[in-house]
Parts: sequence; C-alpha cells; structure tokens
Amino acid sequence: MIETDALIIGAGPVGLFQAFQLGLQEISAHIVDALPHIGGQCVELYADKPIYDIPGVPVCTGRELIASLQTQLAPFKTPVHLGQLVSTVEHQSDGRLLVTTSTGTTFLAKTLFIAAGVGAFQARMPNVEGLAAHIDKQVHLGLPENAAWEDRDVLVLGDSESALSAAIALAQQADKPKSLSLMHRRNVFVAEPGTIATFKALVDTGQIRFVAGQVTGMQEANGRISAAQYVDAEGTQQILPVDELLVLMGLSPKLGPLAHWGLDMERRQIKVNTEAFATDQHCIFAVGDINTYPGKKKLILCGFHECVLAAFGATSIVFPEKRVLLEYTTTSSRLHRLLGVDISAPKENP
Amino acid sequence: MIETDALIIGAGPVGLFQAFQLGLQEISAHIVDALPHIGGQCVELYADKPIYDIPGVPVCTGRELIASLQTQLAPFKTPVHLGQLVSTVEHQSDGRLLVTTSTGTTFLAKTLFIAAGVGAFQARMPNVEGLAAHIDKQVHLGLPENAAWEDRDVLVLGDSESALSAAIALAQQADKPKSLSLMHRRNVFVAEPGTIATFKALVDTGQIRFVAGQVTGMQEANGRISAAQYVDAEGTQQILPVDELLVLMGLSPKLGPLAHWGLDMERRQIKVNTEAFATDQHCIFAVGDINTYPGKKKLILCGFHECVLAAFGATSIVFPEKRVLLEYTTTSSRLHRLLGVDISAPKENP
Repeated sequence: MIETDALIIGAGPVGLFQAFQLGLQEISAHIVDALPHIGGQCVELYADKPIYDIPGVPVCTGRELIASLQTQLAPFKTPVHLGQLVSTVEHQSDGRLLVTTSTGTTFLAKTLFIAAGVGAFQARMPNVEGLAAHIDKQVHLGLPENAAWEDRDVLVLGDSESALSAAIALAQQADKPKSLSLMHRRNVFVAEPGTIATFKALVDTGQIRFVAGQVTGMQEANGRISAAQYVDAEGTQQILPVDELLVLMGLSPKLGPLAHWGLDMERRQIKVNTEAFATDQHCIFAVGDINTYPGKKKLILCGFHECVLAAFGATSIVFPEKRVLLEYTTTSSRLHRLLGVDISAPKENP
Repeated sequence: MIETDALIIGAGPVGLFQAFQLGLQEISAHIVDALPHIGGQCVELYADKPIYDIPGVPVCTGRELIASLQTQLAPFKTPVHLGQLVSTVEHQSDGRLLVTTSTGTTFLAKTLFIAAGVGAFQARMPNVEGLAAHIDKQVHLGLPENAAWEDRDVLVLGDSESALSAAIALAQQADKPKSLSLMHRRNVFVAEPGTIATFKALVDTGQIRFVAGQVTGMQEANGRISAAQYVDAEGTQQILPVDELLVLMGLSPKLGPLAHWGLDMERRQIKVNTEAFATDQHCIFAVGDINTYPGKKKLILCGFHECVLAAFGATSIVFPEKRVLLEYTTTSSRLHRLLGVDISAPKENP
C-alpha cells in the first residue's frame, strides 16, 4: 500500500506536467500508466511527428516534448508505475481514496488526477471471441524473447513497423518457425521503407508468407488453438494452421474501468468545473483530453493550464490549514529550492 | 485607417501568442504596445531572469521566451505598432470597433483582444507637479541623440543601468555638460558590475557628481526649469541648478485609458467568461494578467490557454457562416500551409 498526496492516472504530457505543478505546491505524487513507457499519445501516436502549437516551442516532435517535460519534472523524482491500468477507486471514511491497479498495486491517495487522455492504450485485437483467454499462452501482444518456435506454425497479424519487424526477426533467427505467415487485409504497410524492403525480400524468397485477409475465428482442439479462420482478398473463407499468434495490430485507447467510477460524464468525457478542473466527486480532478467543460478544446496546451488550476485546487485538500499564494518560479526562493536551482542575488554593487 | 479582423493590445508573451492562435484561425491581426519594443513584462522586468514553469521548456529567460514566441509567430507576419497607447475604443453601427492610439493610428477592427498584462508600461516620474509639461523640452525620458549640452547643468535621476549609462555617456563625450549630476536616494545601484565600476571611477575623478537625495520640486523662471529642490541624505532641503533633467527611474505599469472603456471590472481586472475569455462587451476579449475569472492565476501559461479559447471565440464573429472544427498542427494540411511547413506524407511503401 503506497500512501501519497496525489495519484495521477496517465503519464502523457498532461500527466507529467500535472506532477510538476503538484511538485511546485509541495504535493507528493505517483503516476500510473497502462502503457509500458511514459508519453501517452505523444509517443504512441506522433513520436516523430512535429507539433507547432506549444507556446514558446516553434516546433518539436511528440517524443521531444515528452523528453523536455521529463527534464522539467526531474527535480521532483515522481515515481511512475507503468504497464498497469487503474481498475478501482473507493472513497474511504477518512476522505482518502483507495486505488488499485490491474497488477495489484494499491494506493491510498488524498487526491486523484485523471489525465488519461483518450483512455488507456490497449492492444487492438481481431474481433474473435475467446482470444483473450489465450494471451501469453498461444496469443502474444509482443514478440516473446527467445521465442524458439522451430516446430510451430506462426501467424503474425498487423501492418506496422512492429508487426513487420517481428516477422523479419523470426525469419532471420537460427531456429526458424515451421511456417511463418503475416496477415493483413492488403499488401500495404505503415513502416520504415527499409523495414518494408527487407520484409518484401523475405516474402519473395519464400521465408515469410504474406496472406491478404482478415481473421474471423479460431479453431480450437483440447483448449488449444489449432488454426485461424480467415476471409481472403476474394472473400473466400480459408483455414491456416496456427500454433502461435502474434497480434501486433497497434494500440487503441479504451476508456476502461474509469467509465464505471460513477463520475458525471458527457459523451465519454468527464465533466469538470473551470475553477479547479474538479469532477463532481470530492478529491478527484480531471485534466487534459479526458475532461469537458464549456469551450473545451482538446489541445495539449489547454491541458497544461488545467494542471495549474487543479494543483491549486488540490492544496485546499492536502493542506487545509495553509493559505496558498501564487509564487513565481522566476523570483520565489521556495520554488528555487524545490527545483534545485541556485539563483544568484540580484546584481548590486558590492 | 487600418482595417483588421483583430486588434491585439499588448506585445507581451500573451499578446504574441494570441496573434499566433488567431493566425491558425486565419484571422488577420495587428498588435499595439506602449513600449518601444515587444516583450512586455518578460523583457521589461525579467529579460535575463530564468522562468521554470513554461511547459516543455525546463528553463528560459524572459528574453528567450519572447524570441521563441516571435519565431513561432513569424509565418503570420503580424504588424506590430510600438510606442503607442490605445486611447479610445468606440463601437460602430456595423459591429466593428474604432480604435485610436496616442500617436494617432486608427484601426477599424472586427474584434479586440486586450492582452495588456498589468497595464501599459510608462516612465516612473518623480512626484513633482507640472513636470509632464516639460517632457521633450527640458525633461527627457531617454538620452536624446546628439545631446550637445556643454553649456547646461544636467541632472540624471535613477539607479538603473540606463541611468548610469546615460551619465557615463555624457561624461565621456567631447562636449561635456557644464555640470553633470546623478541623483538617487542612496549610493546603491542596480546595474551591471562593469557599469557601476565605470560610473564610480567617473564620480571619484569628479566628472560626475553623485547626489544622495530625492527630488521634491522644481524651480521655474519664465516657464523654464532653473533648478531642482531635493532632500539630501540628512533630510535637509537643498537646491541644484538644472537645465536638462534626465528621468531614468524605470517604468511602472498603468492601467491607462482602458479603465474608462466601460468594461465590467473587478479590482483593476477585466471580468471574462471561461468559455472564450470574452468580456461583457461584444467583440472584446481579455487574456493574460489583465483578466479575472473564478480560479484565475496570473501565470503566462494560463494566458496562453486563454488565447486559444479566445481565438475560437472570435471565429464566430469574423466568420459567422463557418463551422470551425479543432484541427491539429501535427496533422492538418491547412495549418501546415499557414505555417509554411512541408510535411512529407506518412511513410507507406511505394
């Protein structure tokens, strides 16, 4: 059980900046994110794409923005818990929130900041019933290390860099699979040109079989997957023997458990006030793309502003006795101490 | 008469970013500022001091922030009118606003954005009645070019870099004044160490006289200033002959004429809604430190957010027929064209 002043859901740009703003208020925070890395949409959707509307940053990529925000946050040494989804939130009698994650981490937090963007990024799966039960057995959401599959029929699903790279790695390793196929609905891929070229060369030499089609079901025997049913480019039902299925169809955001916490919502957004971006539940704030209010624009910059006012809003919960004044990072020696910077005194004659 | 979609009052960080956000909406804008340079408080009060809380910018000086915002704004080539105070605003029958400045520039604008920070920066003056009437005659708010004052008694007021630099320049020029004094209430200066050292050397060699004191009045003869009355360090009234008075006591912000435009105000702040940061007057928005609303924090970042929503608010006035959707600078080809950037198509195989 981790006790903390604040728990932040989401390690995207807004979640990171929320932690920074809480740090300036001397409010301790932990961050939880469903992805295995920080950065949220910035890294998942536009890591190498340019952003032009961060004020004072004429251009940066999603990855660069995240790196800058990490540098800015560094003085506060905020712990980040990755690869886990916050599953339950319970109000305790002492006013705190008991929060549990999908991997069993539990927090007792005075305040909760939902900075979950468009939701938790989860692996996109083929629309086939019962597939989830095989995850980490015959179904894999990433290429397992040391996958020694020389006696197996392997099928990779996906058109992305990670799907093609996994197929290439399997084709090029010493212990090649018995059969290796990659299926996508058409012969077009979204990956680096070099990766695509390597992939196509392996297809041309018969080391990878490309299958144009879409999976529609699985054949099972004795609780084990034995084959994939799919519709080919001509619309004909086909069967392909499968022992190991690699699902690398990208990630899609899901609102997930937070849809069931009883928060006042509107069209999958959490309703907040504009004074502190507080939800209708005591001690729970929502910032960034996940919230809504009159005039709301889903821009990173707007999320940053929301973090500031939400952090001030939290001070009355975390420090009920304290009257909190606005201080400036340029002039406040308290903030300089927190940020670990040494500002020399104003220049006067000695 | 300049016709424009938008007129922005204030060329500080928020005024500049307002112009950028209007540019993204294809709303043409002009900027007016009372100072002779852009940057507002950022340059006037903390040009070389560090700011730590601009999101994604772990540290920058006021001057660096302004430079970045200028770079960001550059694609829109927004005209800036410096050294003039907006004096009157009149609603026209066609819904537009007729705006005049202290130097006689007039604008006919569809929308007005007040980004005036703490007000217009104006020269701090000694508390002496009637001094303003002598400005640009015997009273100067900056060192005039080619000040040939070899037959004059010159008094410089101030303790800053600009005050000391002016006194040094006069002492070192070929045509030295008949007498040259610098007055400040105590022998402590806020300037570069090198400037202070040069100044003190000139005082030690008798080329500048340092007077510890405060001006309390002026003696005039035939409508001309003849001497300054001042209280010295011992509290004694003294007289110093003066032909030319250089007032370099720094700048202080004054709300100025906008206090009289009939806007709904609260404690010298303009009240706005949080949906578009619109004032109670049609077509007039207020952003940054000048506005107030529940939860308001006077932070640059909050002003930036306000610019976004105000720009969207203005679209319904400037383009009443158009339904404006949120587009992202990362993906919108319309925004790329406006910003003059060439984004290559997403990587697909050829």
